[in-house]
Amino acid sequence: MQKTILHTLRIPIIQAPMAGGVSTPRLAATVSNAGGLGFLAGGYKTAEEMRKEIIAVREMTSAPFGVNVFVPGAQSSDEKALSSYQKELRKEAERLGVPLGDCQWDDDDWEAKLVVLYNEKIPVVSFTFGCPSADIIARLKANGSFVIVTVTSTEEAIIAAQAGAEALCVQGEEAGAHRAVFRNAKDADQHIGLFTLLQQIRTIVDLPLIGAGGIMTGRDLAAVLAAGACAAQLGTAFLRCSESGAHPVHKAALVDPQFSETVVTRAFTGRPARGLVNRFLAKYDAMAPAAYPQVHHMTKSLRKAAAEQNDPHTMALWAGRGYRLAKEMPAAELLSLLMEEAREAVREAMGRVDKL
Amino acid sequence: MQKTILHTLRIPIIQAPMAGGVSTPRLAATVSNAGGLGFLAGGYKTAEEMRKEIIAVREMTSAPFGVNVFVPGAQSSDEKALSSYQKELRKEAERLGVPLGDCQWDDDDWEAKLVVLYNEKIPVVSFTFGCPSADIIARLKANGSFVIVTVTSTEEAIIAAQAGAEALCVQGEEAGAHRAVFRNAKDADQHIGLFTLLQQIRTIVDLPLIGAGGIMTGRDLAAVLAAGACAAQLGTAFLRCSESGAHPVHKAALVDPQFSETVVTRAFTGRPARGLVNRFLAKYDAMAPAAYPQVHHMTKSLRKAAAEQNDPHTMALWAGRGYRLAKEMPAAELLSLLMEEAREAVREAMGRVDKL
Repeated sequence: MQKTILHTLRIPIIQAPMAGGVSTPRLAATVSNAGGLGFLAGGYKTAEEMRKEIIAVREMTSAPFGVNVFVPGAQSSDEKALSSYQKELRKEAERLGVPLGDCQWDDDDWEAKLVVLYNEKIPVVSFTFGCPSADIIARLKANGSFVIVTVTSTEEAIIAAQAGAEALCVQGEEAGAHRAVFRNAKDADQHIGLFTLLQQIRTIVDLPLIGAGGIMTGRDLAAVLAAGACAAQLGTAFLRCSESGAHPVHKAALVDPQFSETVVTRAFTGRPARGLVNRFLAKYDAMAPAAYPQVHHMTKSLRKAAAEQNDPHTMALWAGRGYRLAKEMPAAELLSLLMEEAREAVREAMGRVDKL
Repeated sequence: MQKTILHTLRIPIIQAPMAGGVSTPRLAATVSNAGGLGFLAGGYKTAEEMRKEIIAVREMTSAPFGVNVFVPGAQSSDEKALSSYQKELRKEAERLGVPLGDCQWDDDDWEAKLVVLYNEKIPVVSFTFGCPSADIIARLKANGSFVIVTVTSTEEAIIAAQAGAEALCVQGEEAGAHRAVFRNAKDADQHIGLFTLLQQIRTIVDLPLIGAGGIMTGRDLAAVLAAGACAAQLGTAFLRCSESGAHPVHKAALVDPQFSETVVTRAFTGRPARGLVNRFLAKYDAMAPAAYPQVHHMTKSLRKAAAEQNDPHTMALWAGRGYRLAKEMPAAELLSLLMEEAREAVREAMGRVDKL
């Protein structure tokens, strides 16, 4: 396997792109400056907003960084389920005193974002919710970008490899927020743990793998590297960092004993995503249709109003399975701590296997 | 943490106790002689049969080995669901030309097995399906046995630690055959992956942990050790070994393309267990009641007859998620290979974290 940009990182840690304001340019720049790989989340933004964040990162670092973009999915959805969900959510809107958002499909400014990625010659580009065409990937590569596709199954890994991806971000079911599944359908929901996925994918695809999902400590990092990943992608671990843009209510919920469980739900966006179980999630999980981004747009105003009212029970409290281990500290300190713990864990493992 | 017998193993690999004839004395002795820890499966046997296997192992090795015993569970079960399942299975019995087994609860010769464990002064004793009383554990320890309890959740880990267990076998949802859950109830089914479980349990219990579930290669072993386990327990990885007592049809099914998936089911025994999806499992999974060992006894004759007729579709084809990686080779060779791969994996991980 060729050495890639991932192999040259001094710290084999990628800060996960977290859409919705969490992944600030400052967080990305801090992680990249420290020797890891910081990431901007292009999702939910306009292409122009994304471009501004890229410029902001470049003002803070000359190190490589990444930009993640959502691949648009099918426009079709179950209109009947969607409109009955809309009807249910009207009560929430009334309670909060805001209108429900427009229930429209869109492509998240896909074409314009690709143009920004080309023009800005982003060092690392990753995709979520699907695999771009071989043509798009080839153009990005020719333009100097290193292209990563996020996958959640062997089938998706094969598709991404065949399309020309240079590395795969392997997302286990432990991961917080959106599952990267290519197809948004209830009958296609597959929730495979990170280590089983790495075990399966490393035997069929000869590409560098990034492990994602539930990685919170240096031990977890060490385990993922031993399992064959060349780097680990951490999201929830950065949520409480000073540079994280997570809402204070979200940060507080991660350590609040009233939130004791995460589940995967479509309640907030219409796509499966792992979050803390709160009132909204518990109430609407079962009736939420597989309709993305329609449900995202519909609930956006509710989540915004809830955040303004400091109401954690109507917000999307995205969190991976290991959320209780999220530390409140500057990102650079967290990276040092993770590396120190990882070295200790690897040394211990070495002591266990190198006795002969 | 004190150094235990687990820390002195030259090879930090435990061969999982696999009831039903798979874990032969020869397999256990081979693994122990090679420097790992072989295990006998006391489950399903009479105490006297278990004693004979212990004697057989001792004739083949002077190294430490373990014996696993099932902890008897509650006698109560849903009688109505049980008798309707019995009615369904009569058709299978007729087809195979054998009577259904007696649908009786029993304690798997529990008291008599404890007496054998005391009398034979077994080096390592492990328990599955529950946690024995603090009194029993104390007596075994005083008698020179090292006591392990198998757990599948933080709650079970705390119970086992409080009862005096000296190590925990942490069983992830990836594991083949029976889930070790203390309570057999559909509303209590929890399927947490090994790495999340290790992450959760290592922070609340200060005991040596054994990682179990889905471990098939040296990379997996290295990952589990890096994640904080002091040893790994492998079952499915040994199924195709020459010393394994697995039925040839079972061995063949592990590499047969017609079996492409494992799920957790109560169809065969009334307790959740992971196996390859075959006709019987697919047909009866949904209607199987939580009634153990009644369903086990009931289907025993069917499974035996199916095996005699080389019919993989009516047997319980226990398998962990990584079954496709099970290798056909002598157990000692497998151990060497796993250690070689693990060393390489740990060295690679070291190269990734020790750059500063």
